[in-house]
Amino acid sequence: MEHSPLSLAQSLLRCPSVTPEEGGALAFIEGVLKQAGFEVHRPVFSEPGTPDVENLYARYGTAEPYLLFAGHTDVVPPGDAARWTYDPFGGEIHGGELYGRGAVDMKGGIACMMAAALEFIGANPDFEGSIGFLITGDEEGPAVNGTVKLLEWAKGRGERFDHCILGEPTNPNQLGDMIKIGRRGSLTGRILVEGKQGHVAYPHLADNPIPGLMRLLEGLLKEPLDRGTDHFDASNLEVTTIDVGNPAANVIPAEAKATFNIRFNDLWTPHSLEAEIERRLREAAGNTVRYALTMEPTNAVAFLTPPNEFVGFIANAIKAETGSQPKLSTTGGTSDARFIVKDCPVVEFGLVGQTMHQIDERVAVADLDRLATIYRKVLDAYFAG
Amino acid sequence: MEHSPLSLAQSLLRCPSVTPEEGGALAFIEGVLKQAGFEVHRPVFSEPGTPDVENLYARYGTAEPYLLFAGHTDVVPPGDAARWTYDPFGGEIHGGELYGRGAVDMKGGIACMMAAALEFIGANPDFEGSIGFLITGDEEGPAVNGTVKLLEWAKGRGERFDHCILGEPTNPNQLGDMIKIGRRGSLTGRILVEGKQGHVAYPHLADNPIPGLMRLLEGLLKEPLDRGTDHFDASNLEVTTIDVGNPAANVIPAEAKATFNIRFNDLWTPHSLEAEIERRLREAAGNTVRYALTMEPTNAVAFLTPPNEFVGFIANAIKAETGSQPKLSTTGGTSDARFIVKDCPVVEFGLVGQTMHQIDERVAVADLDRLATIYRKVLDAYFAG
Repeated sequence: MEHSPLSLAQSLLRCPSVTPEEGGALAFIEGVLKQAGFEVHRPVFSEPGTPDVENLYARYGTAEPYLLFAGHTDVVPPGDAARWTYDPFGGEIHGGELYGRGAVDMKGGIACMMAAALEFIGANPDFEGSIGFLITGDEEGPAVNGTVKLLEWAKGRGERFDHCILGEPTNPNQLGDMIKIGRRGSLTGRILVEGKQGHVAYPHLADNPIPGLMRLLEGLLKEPLDRGTDHFDASNLEVTTIDVGNPAANVIPAEAKATFNIRFNDLWTPHSLEAEIERRLREAAGNTVRYALTMEPTNAVAFLTPPNEFVGFIANAIKAETGSQPKLSTTGGTSDARFIVKDCPVVEFGLVGQTMHQIDERVAVADLDRLATIYRKVLDAYFAG
Repeated sequence: MEHSPLSLAQSLLRCPSVTPEEGGALAFIEGVLKQAGFEVHRPVFSEPGTPDVENLYARYGTAEPYLLFAGHTDVVPPGDAARWTYDPFGGEIHGGELYGRGAVDMKGGIACMMAAALEFIGANPDFEGSIGFLITGDEEGPAVNGTVKLLEWAKGRGERFDHCILGEPTNPNQLGDMIKIGRRGSLTGRILVEGKQGHVAYPHLADNPIPGLMRLLEGLLKEPLDRGTDHFDASNLEVTTIDVGNPAANVIPAEAKATFNIRFNDLWTPHSLEAEIERRLREAAGNTVRYALTMEPTNAVAFLTPPNEFVGFIANAIKAETGSQPKLSTTGGTSDARFIVKDCPVVEFGLVGQTMHQIDERVAVADLDRLATIYRKVLDAYFAG
């Protein structure tokens, strides 16, 4: 095989592509894909106040169906490089493991996608359909010059996708553990309760905002938002901070504020959830608590790709290669899948995430080979007819 | 009258005695009292980390009973002097009112005490008993080199007091409104709840300390501490701050902390109250909330001078001069009376507090005359029998 997943991964790991640096990673992918017959574009996006970011879009074929591989080459900083056992940008192999920042999140995944695509195209140069790569350099950073703009750019060119595999590390422990077929949404709100400052010795002349804020937060927390759905856990609200900032123990403070975040399932939209929050606060406040609620704008809606034939292709490939029946999950944080799902069904499957964002991030070389084989089997099934 | 309350007050107001500056105020008092036959001492107290502070102790007579006048000449800063209608250290009279920082808190009160004492001594040079002045320069500041040390110093000299009048401004609206015959105590506690930091998307891997802290605070607040006593309002607990300081809405914080302050009546000692706090927290925490309670050391115990003959002297003098029956109160913050009460019964009566600590602090000239007359009537009654 001309390009093994391991050699591709090593080449990518040696590119110091800490957000927003391209670091040579996209140029490397461009070269490999062009040689294999892909049409490759390298759009650069700008936004005032953020650094320009390079991205990559590549397509092989013009026919339908169109299967898109999505991912990012940017990585989080290695932190103190001296704490790494091996050079975080060295691409070294030790004890059957490939070390480096991005090994699992997610240069390793991209290498496997590339290896699988090249092998499939080599074996089926005239297959009916298209294979694409949508690779951003701004996933770990502000994420404003990345996937969202790249999708807009592609749609502006008339591109239309049928299905997408996002190669984020999805497996908690072993390759084959878990496919993500959806993600919860995220909504953040801030509450400010106004009182009246005064001396603790004269509470009747003051109005302590803290008991009112506690009542509002109890109102938010006392009933579960829902019980979950077939594919989602129950929506969950966490109060993430309460801040009064009053250093004087003999003073009743003038105001108190809190922030909460909700991870919500597909029973809710941001809009319906905000209405429920407002209802609970109104009820808890009664006529006595003066407060202001500010909801932060969110693009993190809940989404689900129902377990259909496409999900079946992936699950079957995993089962065939690993012997595991992957869990179809919607857990975890948000991902770029929430943007892609507006254009086509998207499923996430990649490497084992245990070492992501950590010192000594690494991947088993054997996992790279197996993940490439899984992606190859998905391509075989997807384009079989 | 050689020294009118007004002229004494003007002289004192013209001394810029913002804590810890003596500003000439104690020297002025020393001169006047010495001339009237008092034995005067000017002890200076030191404490590492705080400025040295001058104080004054004076006694006329050697016999019993010994009536002590107590107060302070230090004042809070005037703030922006440009916002004052008249010079805060000018001692100017406008519209029948004497303006200046300390006019009511409490150089005006000291002037009335001095005028009353000089007049009484002038009329009764050989009265059976003693009159004293215990004047500190550190009441508005750290209050470590003031009344506490001055009392220690006096006791070290063998001084023993029978009764004390503290001349703080006690009247909310009109001269004669209110005598303070006690004060509530003050106790401050801090609660720290420990959780486990984590990502909001994985709440099962974290332990949010905020709901636990809310449960503890509800446990503190849900039942009144008491219903009050004959002379005291109910004890009151205020949560004065809650602070988590977590700026990231996608992070569950590691710990949460709160501070509370209790103003408590004579049903409690700091010790018994602390035991009650501990009991409530234990009950609210159950087996689930890990917390630490830290109680700040306090010297602010609750005290009461029961309405006895001495209180009667003062109430009668007020009634005779103003026509008002003063309320015998224990409301408000702490005062230096809490230190004096360890040595003798103490009652607080002074001017009208409305403008204290404010821009354009001022006192009606008529009130100075009337308060001096009240103190004089108290002296007459006290030493009559």
